[in-house]
Amino acid sequence: MHFCSTSGDSDSALVFDCGTDIIVIGSGFAGLAAAIEAAESGAKVQVLEKMMAPGGNSAISDGGIAAPGTTYQADVGISDSSDQMYQDMMAAGEGMNYPDLVKTVTEGARDAFLWSRDHLNVKYKNRVDIFGGHSVARCYTPETISGVAIIKRQLARLKELKVPIRLGIFVKALIQDETGRVTGVRIINGYRYGKLNHGAERTLTAAKAVIVASGGFGSDVAFRKAQDPRLDSTFMSTNKPFATADILKECLRIGANPVQLSHIQLAPWTSPDEKGAGAAPLFGDYVVLPYGLIVDPETNKRFVNELTDRKNLAESILKRSHPVIGIADETGVQTAGWDLARALNKGVVKTYNTPEKLAQAYAMEPDALQATLTRFNHLIQAGNDEDFQKPILKEAAPLNQPPFYAMRIWPKVHHTMGGVQIDTSARVIHRDQHPISGLYAAGEVTGGIHGACRLGSCAVTECLVMGRIAGKKASYESIPFHLP
Amino acid sequence: MHFCSTSGDSDSALVFDCGTDIIVIGSGFAGLAAAIEAAESGAKVQVLEKMMAPGGNSAISDGGIAAPGTTYQADVGISDSSDQMYQDMMAAGEGMNYPDLVKTVTEGARDAFLWSRDHLNVKYKNRVDIFGGHSVARCYTPETISGVAIIKRQLARLKELKVPIRLGIFVKALIQDETGRVTGVRIINGYRYGKLNHGAERTLTAAKAVIVASGGFGSDVAFRKAQDPRLDSTFMSTNKPFATADILKECLRIGANPVQLSHIQLAPWTSPDEKGAGAAPLFGDYVVLPYGLIVDPETNKRFVNELTDRKNLAESILKRSHPVIGIADETGVQTAGWDLARALNKGVVKTYNTPEKLAQAYAMEPDALQATLTRFNHLIQAGNDEDFQKPILKEAAPLNQPPFYAMRIWPKVHHTMGGVQIDTSARVIHRDQHPISGLYAAGEVTGGIHGACRLGSCAVTECLVMGRIAGKKASYESIPFHLP
Repeated sequence: MHFCSTSGDSDSALVFDCGTDIIVIGSGFAGLAAAIEAAESGAKVQVLEKMMAPGGNSAISDGGIAAPGTTYQADVGISDSSDQMYQDMMAAGEGMNYPDLVKTVTEGARDAFLWSRDHLNVKYKNRVDIFGGHSVARCYTPETISGVAIIKRQLARLKELKVPIRLGIFVKALIQDETGRVTGVRIINGYRYGKLNHGAERTLTAAKAVIVASGGFGSDVAFRKAQDPRLDSTFMSTNKPFATADILKECLRIGANPVQLSHIQLAPWTSPDEKGAGAAPLFGDYVVLPYGLIVDPETNKRFVNELTDRKNLAESILKRSHPVIGIADETGVQTAGWDLARALNKGVVKTYNTPEKLAQAYAMEPDALQATLTRFNHLIQAGNDEDFQKPILKEAAPLNQPPFYAMRIWPKVHHTMGGVQIDTSARVIHRDQHPISGLYAAGEVTGGIHGACRLGSCAVTECLVMGRIAGKKASYESIPFHLP
Repeated sequence: MHFCSTSGDSDSALVFDCGTDIIVIGSGFAGLAAAIEAAESGAKVQVLEKMMAPGGNSAISDGGIAAPGTTYQADVGISDSSDQMYQDMMAAGEGMNYPDLVKTVTEGARDAFLWSRDHLNVKYKNRVDIFGGHSVARCYTPETISGVAIIKRQLARLKELKVPIRLGIFVKALIQDETGRVTGVRIINGYRYGKLNHGAERTLTAAKAVIVASGGFGSDVAFRKAQDPRLDSTFMSTNKPFATADILKECLRIGANPVQLSHIQLAPWTSPDEKGAGAAPLFGDYVVLPYGLIVDPETNKRFVNELTDRKNLAESILKRSHPVIGIADETGVQTAGWDLARALNKGVVKTYNTPEKLAQAYAMEPDALQATLTRFNHLIQAGNDEDFQKPILKEAAPLNQPPFYAMRIWPKVHHTMGGVQIDTSARVIHRDQHPISGLYAAGEVTGGIHGACRLGSCAVTECLVMGRIAGKKASYESIPFHLP
């Protein structure tokens, strides 16, 4: 049963929306996954995106997705399970994660990864990587090292499903009926980011549900600073400037319970010498942390387990009050196997023929840095980091092969762990602990899955698992019957 | 200019409120401080309290208040300043505190303490104590070791000022006018906690402002569990059962920005062998932490700096997954100088003639415990805890004087650091970062002052400082003029 609803608007534009069951707000990983599942379940779906291009912040991520128990792991002798991934996420989250949501994500992780590969035809590199805080390597990265690879395949599937992606649509308000059920959205048509004088306001109705997949608020300085006053405008972000709290706040307005908003993740592998996520993280996150070391240029020494979780690593860097230096050698770069051309061309990662020259470039003491390297190489060879308990990877080798690579590291706002409360069906939960009828959410706009700290590559997993659930569950909603 | 407003209620009860300028919700330290200042500034004030007795959770606190730069400190040679207290609060709060609010509290601390002593005539003991996380002793405790001592004197002053404390009034809703200004409250008259069939609903109007001082949500299992899923109903709380999120949620409903709600403090000096705050904390907090030690009964060893901040201490105990044992000797008890009769009579603190008998009572290895005590005594005599970096107090002595005292320790939910956002004028801030007209808040219902972790004895300070500011600022509100 479908409805045709006619909304008379005060601006005299009459909008006629016939037969939209589900409105998805946001076109990142979660929103597009939701749209695909909803459409495949037979619902009529529209995706609304405020920008003039789809993909949101997902498009600028590296697209790495975590999943346990794959053949990629088996090929290199890694034993893993959804329970092991659950334990890793709970440990990093300091136990503050929602256990039932983490179970849902970790138990759905492998299926979501295979769905992206086999159903959507995303091409992944034939390798598996480890990120800080994971107990084993379980991250798979698209061949292009970009989330765009996933977004493109999601869009291709939606094209087949004839689901429109409407760009330049800013959602101004959620609309509820007299029972509190979310029945649609108030939009600004023809929205142009950063410009005034947008198009007219319109109302779009959704017979079944609205799915919020509007992303995090990492670039919303006022909102993030209210949660963590340190994160004022002097902090850079890996996010695009459009990562704001607008829809999150709109959910709060209609009663969604805000959970763990103050858990804001800082990326501890970013360069203060470039804006946004930039080119340096491919070196910082994929080379320095597993195979290199981080040195405080004032002490010339290591100060942290480079493979600790992101929260510990970022906080330990912040305590230094100045950028620190990430270092690796040619062997580490080769072992990692990533092409660093963009970072090197941009000058955010630099190479030096000797540790001495590297030291001089960052005003360090050459002898003291050499002592730190000697000690680090000794620990690698011993296979045991008795100084900072970094897990020494099997393929890790002493740093002695020139050129030596280095980058300055200073954290940037990366991910907002908090958001609206949801249940395992992706229903948005009210402050009074009942679901808000007709409202679903998935992805970074939701809170509780990562607790105090998200592990790298778990966001893509979360977006696909929870987005798919939101799309499926929303498509099952029975359409309420209102007498005329 | 005062208004007389008549509200016609749908339940046909007409309520006539003439000339109330300010409604204060809650009768704990903060609410009563606000009421006193508002009344002394000439405003007409009413205090609403849902319970049938005033005082809220403040009445069951020990009433200890932190203030720097007092003669009590000078008498024992302690140098302190508001800046030093600021640094301590920011360090415990992991830098997530609102700096301007912490400045306001610490700069107003001494004045608030002296106001309670000299203006309200609260009798304090002539001593100064240290709690974990403070760099110096700066806590003053009422002679009766109870927050009631402060509440009683606040009530006495309000009686002089002819401010009514209306008991059994449940605030169901905040009321706003068409501009969004808070103009009153919807109440349930004749409310009886835990009973059905309350009295009729009424509307009370406030010409100037409503001040929310409704306390924390430590006993609101659903609301606290949404923020920290570990804190389900199996966790005990030091709070009374009426410490719920009702008014906090009502503030969120009208747009107040929720900040740092997931920062929930666990008391690491409470006994699982009694309900509520109980009698054991006087031993745990005032004796064990400064002069004694905490031992894991499974390892027979110390595992933490007993004077670290509450967050570190509680998390380190939670990691053990079983209650730990707090131990002191007669010398420590005498040095602390508190009467432990109630805890001993209740059996939550026990005495033993020898460490061996103490060990046996908690299924520990006597020899291993003796080794731990010998090591601890050595560190005390050396004046340097090289094992866990506990600051050794000047008056601390080796543990060797029977009887030996012990209690089981397991954390209880104690304080909710998060709440509504306020500014330094105690105005409640909207999600969109503007003040909500006519709405003020102070005390535990507000967020941001303590960041990730509140230091002991700083809550009373906060309540008095911010409550007084709320009362003064609200009394300055000009009464909006509405044409009939």
